[in-house]
Amino acid sequence: MLRNPVMGEFMGTFIMMVLGNGVVAACVLKRTKAEGSGWLAITTGWAFAVLCGIFAGNLFGSPDAFLNPAIAIAFAIKLGDFSHVVPFVAAEVAGAFLGAVSVWLFYLPHWAVTESQDDKRGSFCTGPAIRSFGSNFFCEIFATFVLVLVVGAIGSKLVLSAGPAPGVSPFLVGCLVWSVGLSLGATTGYAINPARDFGPRLAHALLPIAGKGYSDWSYAWIPVAGPIIGASLAAFVLRALGA
Amino acid sequence: MLRNPVMGEFMGTFIMMVLGNGVVAACVLKRTKAEGSGWLAITTGWAFAVLCGIFAGNLFGSPDAFLNPAIAIAFAIKLGDFSHVVPFVAAEVAGAFLGAVSVWLFYLPHWAVTESQDDKRGSFCTGPAIRSFGSNFFCEIFATFVLVLVVGAIGSKLVLSAGPAPGVSPFLVGCLVWSVGLSLGATTGYAINPARDFGPRLAHALLPIAGKGYSDWSYAWIPVAGPIIGASLAAFVLRALGA
Amino acid sequence: MLRNPVMGEFMGTFIMMVLGNGVVAACVLKRTKAEGSGWLAITTGWAFAVLCGIFAGNLFGSPDAFLNPAIAIAFAIKLGDFSHVVPFVAAEVAGAFLGAVSVWLFYLPHWAVTESQDDKRGSFCTGPAIRSFGSNFFCEIFATFVLVLVVGAIGSKLVLSAGPAPGVSPFLVGCLVWSVGLSLGATTGYAINPARDFGPRLAHALLPIAGKGYSDWSYAWIPVAGPIIGASLAAFVLRALGA
Amino acid sequence: MLRNPVMGEFMGTFIMMVLGNGVVAACVLKRTKAEGSGWLAITTGWAFAVLCGIFAGNLFGSPDAFLNPAIAIAFAIKLGDFSHVVPFVAAEVAGAFLGAVSVWLFYLPHWAVTESQDDKRGSFCTGPAIRSFGSNFFCEIFATFVLVLVVGAIGSKLVLSAGPAPGVSPFLVGCLVWSVGLSLGATTGYAINPARDFGPRLAHALLPIAGKGYSDWSYAWIPVAGPIIGASLAAFVLRALGA
Repeated sequence: MLRNPVMGEFMGTFIMMVLGNGVVAACVLKRTKAEGSGWLAITTGWAFAVLCGIFAGNLFGSPDAFLNPAIAIAFAIKLGDFSHVVPFVAAEVAGAFLGAVSVWLFYLPHWAVTESQDDKRGSFCTGPAIRSFGSNFFCEIFATFVLVLVVGAIGSKLVLSAGPAPGVSPFLVGCLVWSVGLSLGATTGYAINPARDFGPRLAHALLPIAGKGYSDWSYAWIPVAGPIIGASLAAFVLRALGA
Repeated sequence: MLRNPVMGEFMGTFIMMVLGNGVVAACVLKRTKAEGSGWLAITTGWAFAVLCGIFAGNLFGSPDAFLNPAIAIAFAIKLGDFSHVVPFVAAEVAGAFLGAVSVWLFYLPHWAVTESQDDKRGSFCTGPAIRSFGSNFFCEIFATFVLVLVVGAIGSKLVLSAGPAPGVSPFLVGCLVWSVGLSLGATTGYAINPARDFGPRLAHALLPIAGKGYSDWSYAWIPVAGPIIGASLAAFVLRALGA
Repeated sequence: MLRNPVMGEFMGTFIMMVLGNGVVAACVLKRTKAEGSGWLAITTGWAFAVLCGIFAGNLFGSPDAFLNPAIAIAFAIKLGDFSHVVPFVAAEVAGAFLGAVSVWLFYLPHWAVTESQDDKRGSFCTGPAIRSFGSNFFCEIFATFVLVLVVGAIGSKLVLSAGPAPGVSPFLVGCLVWSVGLSLGATTGYAINPARDFGPRLAHALLPIAGKGYSDWSYAWIPVAGPIIGASLAAFVLRALGA
Repeated sequence: MLRNPVMGEFMGTFIMMVLGNGVVAACVLKRTKAEGSGWLAITTGWAFAVLCGIFAGNLFGSPDAFLNPAIAIAFAIKLGDFSHVVPFVAAEVAGAFLGAVSVWLFYLPHWAVTESQDDKRGSFCTGPAIRSFGSNFFCEIFATFVLVLVVGAIGSKLVLSAGPAPGVSPFLVGCLVWSVGLSLGATTGYAINPARDFGPRLAHALLPIAGKGYSDWSYAWIPVAGPIIGASLAAFVLRALGA
């Protein structure tokens, strides 16, 4: 029971979100040792959050460690097998929810001393730099398309017939996430993952966070629909390539 | 049709430019989440942009993934086979042009809120820190010479008889680009690649960018001629070494 | 005598602490070349400090290179063999003490020119961003749990049957420490290692540091007990998984 | 003639110094694109400078790529064979000198616009943060001891019987240099290499740098003698270990 693909998706996403939301909280909440460390620190932290999440996902029984409903759907499209999608998505959302709750507990004394409601919500879920739903939607589609295309390349037998050297693949995916964060993350905060946004947004809505403000549900469809569309487009390309 | 060396050069350069120009736009345009993140963020982003571009280039059918007319020419000199140069250069320029167009779309609401015409142009093509054509030209020649020499070393059987461990080579090239950016990029913005500069400059000239200013065509020959000369010099050295 | 597991734990922890406390001193003491470089520099430095410590530990005869009593205890729990715990813990504490003494000597002229007693103590041992023992204790437990769980994953045959490619494993552990530092280090300074905190705190208490202030012993139990509990919890999970 | 160990030491040190002094010049000279990027950028740049220098050294015929008289002497001590020391040291100093000259040319318009003589000299050779010859000397000894000990570990059959995976070793050495720079570089600027300091200091003395000031020869013995002593001590330890 402890070790199977659904458990792996749950635990991998949990660890990824603990570390991913953790670095955002570290950098934007007040009176932390990382306060004001900025975008380079956040994107670096997220890169390694994904790296660690992949290892945790593998450990608990998911050799693929998608950690992302959009990628789970994309690979289902690529392989033409949708049987795992529902349990994987549920596990990923639950893991992301629990990860966000843990970050809330971890930074407990810091919520009350942080005034900005945007920064507090930003430690849970994503939001746009400039609110413009058309453009925000395009960003999430496009960034996820790039993410999944290159994830597909790193894992493709067309590129490396026997795959990267053992242990190198999660690091390369981490570098890819670093890249997407630095280059395509500055407009919407790069959800590029429906679970990463929806689970923590739910946590934000439910938890008694000091002075938390609204959970911005009107934006919530973008980081869900955008990544699914972007990943699906990449999946069609990967399938056409025979990757 | 979807997968061949020319397509690989096109798609690899496209992905590289999306991520490369993306990180510049992220750091210099106003009201992004990365605003003001500075040179270390830009050079880090460019390093991973090249890493991801190489994987994308491999995926779409170019095992070499030059992504750079200067390198394509250098390796043609090294191998004495120029048959691929014209289609490769065309594909790389087209990929870079399309990448720049995509970054313009991606950051669409941010162009109007950014006043500096230099910063907007800098999100497309390179420009000198101090305008001095002789020195700028030398910088592009020299930086590209270093780039191609070390690219040649990483891939040379003289250095590693069987090549780096699978998947490690693109990362090492990424580190090299990180290095060239940090150490030799601060004078001209390190085009070190004619396609990376010319394609996006054309996009800058053609696109209806809000308050864009001039495209500085008088400088445009330097990031084209400089990298070709520097790469060619390195190619002669590599050939003399039997690398 | 020069080369055995206990010597390896001693020398590995020594090198780790020299580099780990070194980067803190570099960033927080006055009139250094790194003054004010901030949290990203500190966490980067600590990541590589662990990487280098592992190689030093291996060199002097500890193939595991725990460098951390909490991890030594965790693996003793996992394997059900506690025979090495006492000598390992003693060696790690002694190595950390000597490392802290060395950093004091290394930065000798800088202690007198630094006014803040907190910054000087922070170059030896950890302290909370917001003093709240319950929350601080939870942070050290939780961060160490994540650390040990992912360390276990990186080294588990369940994840990579033959382990990471040679030399890659210490780098992955370094990335993990980078991640834990960036994401879960900003509340308590991430001791996540009883030796890393207790040894240097003892050095702080004993050394004639210019204007040093108190050693904050009332906090000292948290970075000892917290990591041991967190690591033990992770060990039980790893054992249950058969990792 | 083009490819042999002495040529490898010359070209490897040349490339290392171009990139190493390049990143310092980029960050401290005025009106560069990297101006004020700080210590993290400098140490990152130096790490990759060494990585690239190693590949260049290998390419031109030095499989060890010491790039550093102190390491060349240390390994001569370890192996009991001093026959290569004199030509290697001469090649390394010459390479470092030529690298510094190249960086002067590369940043040519920026010397005149930079007022600080310290910053200009700092783009050539090292200098202490706090002038205190005893402490400065200790720092160079100690930092080089750590460097050479861990270099020895990375390359030792005691640690990895077949060595790191192909291509990984130069990257690990780069990480080590990153670590030494971040943690032990902030007091003296981490020469940790006599050629890296003496060659460029000579260039500083001879070149017609705009408003350059004095070359601080009174300090010059420290970054020569300190690294040789530190490396030699590490060599004795490595030999005693049979590493």
